[in-house]
Amino acid sequence: MKEDKIKVRAKDKKTNKTSKNGKAVKSAVKGVKTKKSQKPLKTVKLDKKEREEKKSLKIRFLGGVGEIGKNMTALEYGKDIIVIDAGITFPGDNMPGVDLVIPDVTYLAENKSRIRGIIITHGHEDHIGSIPYVMKDLSAPIFGTKLTLTLIESKLKEHKLNEVSLNCIKAGSTIKLGCFSIEFINVNHSIAGAVGLSITTPVGVVFHSGDFKIDYTPVNGETMDLSRISEIGKNGVLLMMADSTNIEIDGTTMSESVVKETLDHVFADNLKKRLIIATFASNVHRLQQILDLAVKYKRKVAFSGRSMINIAEAASKIGELTIPDNLIIDVEKIKNFKDEQVLIVSTGTQGEPMSALTRMASGEFNKVVISKNDTVVISASVIPGNEKMIYGVINNLYKLGAEVIYESLEPIHVSGHACRGELKLLHTLIKPKFFIPVHGEYRHLKKHALLAQSIGVKESNIAIAEIGDTVELTTKTMRMGEKFKAGSRFVDGVGIDGEDSFVLRDRIRLSGDGLVVVVVGVDEFSAQLTSLEIVGKGLVLSDSVIEEAKSNVIHTLSHVDLRKVKDEEELSNIIKRSIKNYLYKSTKKNPMILPVIMVV
Amino acid sequence: MKEDKIKVRAKDKKTNKTSKNGKAVKSAVKGVKTKKSQKPLKTVKLDKKEREEKKSLKIRFLGGVGEIGKNMTALEYGKDIIVIDAGITFPGDNMPGVDLVIPDVTYLAENKSRIRGIIITHGHEDHIGSIPYVMKDLSAPIFGTKLTLTLIESKLKEHKLNEVSLNCIKAGSTIKLGCFSIEFINVNHSIAGAVGLSITTPVGVVFHSGDFKIDYTPVNGETMDLSRISEIGKNGVLLMMADSTNIEIDGTTMSESVVKETLDHVFADNLKKRLIIATFASNVHRLQQILDLAVKYKRKVAFSGRSMINIAEAASKIGELTIPDNLIIDVEKIKNFKDEQVLIVSTGTQGEPMSALTRMASGEFNKVVISKNDTVVISASVIPGNEKMIYGVINNLYKLGAEVIYESLEPIHVSGHACRGELKLLHTLIKPKFFIPVHGEYRHLKKHALLAQSIGVKESNIAIAEIGDTVELTTKTMRMGEKFKAGSRFVDGVGIDGEDSFVLRDRIRLSGDGLVVVVVGVDEFSAQLTSLEIVGKGLVLSDSVIEEAKSNVIHTLSHVDLRKVKDEEELSNIIKRSIKNYLYKSTKKNPMILPVIMVV
Repeated sequence: MKEDKIKVRAKDKKTNKTSKNGKAVKSAVKGVKTKKSQKPLKTVKLDKKEREEKKSLKIRFLGGVGEIGKNMTALEYGKDIIVIDAGITFPGDNMPGVDLVIPDVTYLAENKSRIRGIIITHGHEDHIGSIPYVMKDLSAPIFGTKLTLTLIESKLKEHKLNEVSLNCIKAGSTIKLGCFSIEFINVNHSIAGAVGLSITTPVGVVFHSGDFKIDYTPVNGETMDLSRISEIGKNGVLLMMADSTNIEIDGTTMSESVVKETLDHVFADNLKKRLIIATFASNVHRLQQILDLAVKYKRKVAFSGRSMINIAEAASKIGELTIPDNLIIDVEKIKNFKDEQVLIVSTGTQGEPMSALTRMASGEFNKVVISKNDTVVISASVIPGNEKMIYGVINNLYKLGAEVIYESLEPIHVSGHACRGELKLLHTLIKPKFFIPVHGEYRHLKKHALLAQSIGVKESNIAIAEIGDTVELTTKTMRMGEKFKAGSRFVDGVGIDGEDSFVLRDRIRLSGDGLVVVVVGVDEFSAQLTSLEIVGKGLVLSDSVIEEAKSNVIHTLSHVDLRKVKDEEELSNIIKRSIKNYLYKSTKKNPMILPVIMVV
Repeated sequence: MKEDKIKVRAKDKKTNKTSKNGKAVKSAVKGVKTKKSQKPLKTVKLDKKEREEKKSLKIRFLGGVGEIGKNMTALEYGKDIIVIDAGITFPGDNMPGVDLVIPDVTYLAENKSRIRGIIITHGHEDHIGSIPYVMKDLSAPIFGTKLTLTLIESKLKEHKLNEVSLNCIKAGSTIKLGCFSIEFINVNHSIAGAVGLSITTPVGVVFHSGDFKIDYTPVNGETMDLSRISEIGKNGVLLMMADSTNIEIDGTTMSESVVKETLDHVFADNLKKRLIIATFASNVHRLQQILDLAVKYKRKVAFSGRSMINIAEAASKIGELTIPDNLIIDVEKIKNFKDEQVLIVSTGTQGEPMSALTRMASGEFNKVVISKNDTVVISASVIPGNEKMIYGVINNLYKLGAEVIYESLEPIHVSGHACRGELKLLHTLIKPKFFIPVHGEYRHLKKHALLAQSIGVKESNIAIAEIGDTVELTTKTMRMGEKFKAGSRFVDGVGIDGEDSFVLRDRIRLSGDGLVVVVVGVDEFSAQLTSLEIVGKGLVLSDSVIEEAKSNVIHTLSHVDLRKVKDEEELSNIIKRSIKNYLYKSTKKNPMILPVIMVV
């Protein structure tokens, strides 16, 4: 990260207040209370509604509820809007050819001038991934911690967006954006520099957990700031929004340091073998532990995979990762060392087709040739939907003779998200009046709502929001407000397409049933059929089926006066109808029929 | 099942020996020993090899190794072949539009006259599903237990294959097919009527576990026949092939009866609500327990989903399922009962798009409208790959207000496959000289091989086979033999396609990158380009991109003397080349380019 390109703002300069003791928060709340007491009670109905609307805080969900992915939430009061996170989702099986799914930010683009800032809780793709796309439509300063901004910066560079203002904040600091004052709270997560947010708004404090877990023995020594959280809770929180990812898991998430103990055993058990560890590049604390073990066991480390190399380098530059001198070797150089002197740290924990590990497993990566003397550790959990891919990689590694350690009884990976025990603690400390579960599919949100209820939040004070929902908050009430235009947009090659994408629907149809092209030549003057060609792709069409289909078209068109056909579309429909049923009957497929009419 | 259509053969009639005490097995083994002692030792090398080949038992793997699915194995000795199982696999994400995957039985079809019988271990799709397809190429009697044959019969009917000979066997009986004598051993599994096989061959006994678990408290009271297995082991087993599905799970699989206890709690906790339980239709023991609970809690039962209705009816007819009078009501009639009087038993545990449960969850099933007063139990585990679909269903059920019980801490489902503890017991009882793990992906097979080694099988006596491998066995040796043509065939509409399917490759291409049709009209006499049309499907092509692409084609063709172009293929390639790079540059997609040339 080039420091000169990122405007680092001192925390205190920004607010001119010491924020850690909560004074800023209190005075902001006071301001609201004054406003409220000035409000004339019980006036004409319409006026009241109008005023209430003006003075309510609107929370708009653009993503991350009803799904795990593309987190994006906007807080809006009066003329001010702040945005929390701007993530992506990876496309599902029902989105062939789609590269990424991003939130539809139409609403924000329409209210562009009102956006005071975009606050990023941490640097995972589901929180930062859509920044380069949405920043083409928005213009607002971005706020995040050091590693978060480093990761964002490299994305912006790739997209040649050099004008975006990146502002580095630290946990413990507070910034003021319009009527909002945002305090950043250190939380633990599977990436360094993750923060929760305590946002003082004109109607009260909104606490947003971000993605978090409580790690009492974190790698960098900085446990989630429970004492500050407890203080915030004591001062009164109007609304909490909190991570629901692990709501189905009882107890507490294991500490990241547990992984080191397990990996230490793996190193000790494999003294004579080459070691390959696959992990998420952005989990720099995991990476730090792995590098420390390499030092302990006197192995050189070769990074493999573009994102692993880039992120390790960037994290090391900003001091988030300590790489001892002479530890790292180029992956090309591993042949100069004995197997027992080498550790390869690789991408590809999810079996991504082009990743280093996948190519090693399929024998297509000539820099690392897998043999009987390799032990491969997959230090990550399988993201649902990726099972087949990653098990394919594991099977291939075994076939090449390697030992593979994955999802074993030993904890070679720990989650970055709070389990039920931690969530109960957070609820108990924050004691919010209102609660909205976030970061989860509907089932997670529902169960988190039930947990909140069991801890003491009134059922009527809990909202389960969906994308496109607005929740309106006053100092005393929470209610569902208007729906606004929101949803998914598909990044696909150079294009970005909406949810109603015909292209996508066509692809799904093509992939399941194939396509039949019917080219019809029509004489311009006689309006007679002069030529006919039928070609199929993606389905089995025998010559006899093609001939019969041609006869059907000819037969149908012989009964049509082409001069009377209104337009090409009408003629297309006539052609489609002439063979649709026949094609289904003879192939049991419903191919897309694409008539091309050539007037010759 | 119409008994008159199925030739039920008495076990003793078939062999003329009481098989349960193992006499048949022993005498058969004796026969082999005699043969062996007659063999001239140490003769000319080539002769020896020829003889050895003739006298070795060949085990050919047509499916079910290196995968969980489409099980099919052939045993071949001299002129005799027997086949074990004939299953299907459901298509993966990389097989768009494919209905089913079946084994390639080219080898068996070529040796059709030598097949003495097809033995089916149980009625799951991965063991019986390809019967209606492969029986178009093969002709041999099929052997299986009552429920197995019932399920096969309904498949054959659907495919109008009425000539296949179905032969009902019972656990404990022995049949003779050519030089093979096959004894059926009762095993526990998640379907009634599952058997393992003890096959006496001229070289020794081959024990095949089938899919199994050891259930000490099975619903029908019939525990896996451990005493007979122990006896077979004592008499000497040359080769064992055994189920590897749960090799990664320590301990033992829970008994099916545990499910009843848990479900009893669910019934007791939901006395005022309507209950919906989704389960696999073929798990008739599960179904029996559910029906028993309905009787206990005085609920009427409505079956929902075609396969649930069909299988319950069939299983009841053959006495595998006891349905008390007046218990079952039509699903249309549930509105005549109070919620607490109704239990709906439904298909759809995997979130299959057209299943009853999926349609209930999406509100598209007007016979069962989900409300707050419903508790839905999904009594099954998620088959890897189906996570997104089933969680989609669960999310939708929650949205409609239902309570959903799934994968909870309570055992509402138990596996049908043996865990490591049970496998160790089987290995200890059978004590085979040679071992081949089956029914697993490579990683499962590898781990099962290691388990066998740890129990005492020599490493060199274990083979991990892949589809298309032949393992050759003599009384003393096991070695990898020739590869034979085997693999996958795709059932797709009315067609069946091979692994090298162009159609499938086209579909994958179409689904990811779409298609561009280039129609070129060429004048027959002047050999000049007379017309040009470009149409895109499944990708975004702006008008300007289409115009530019047209210019490219025109420009390229203006430099080509069409009279000198050899054939259509050459012209097609020229057209493809003229726009390929431009299309990638302007869309970042590699669409399939389909030139259609019309001579006009």
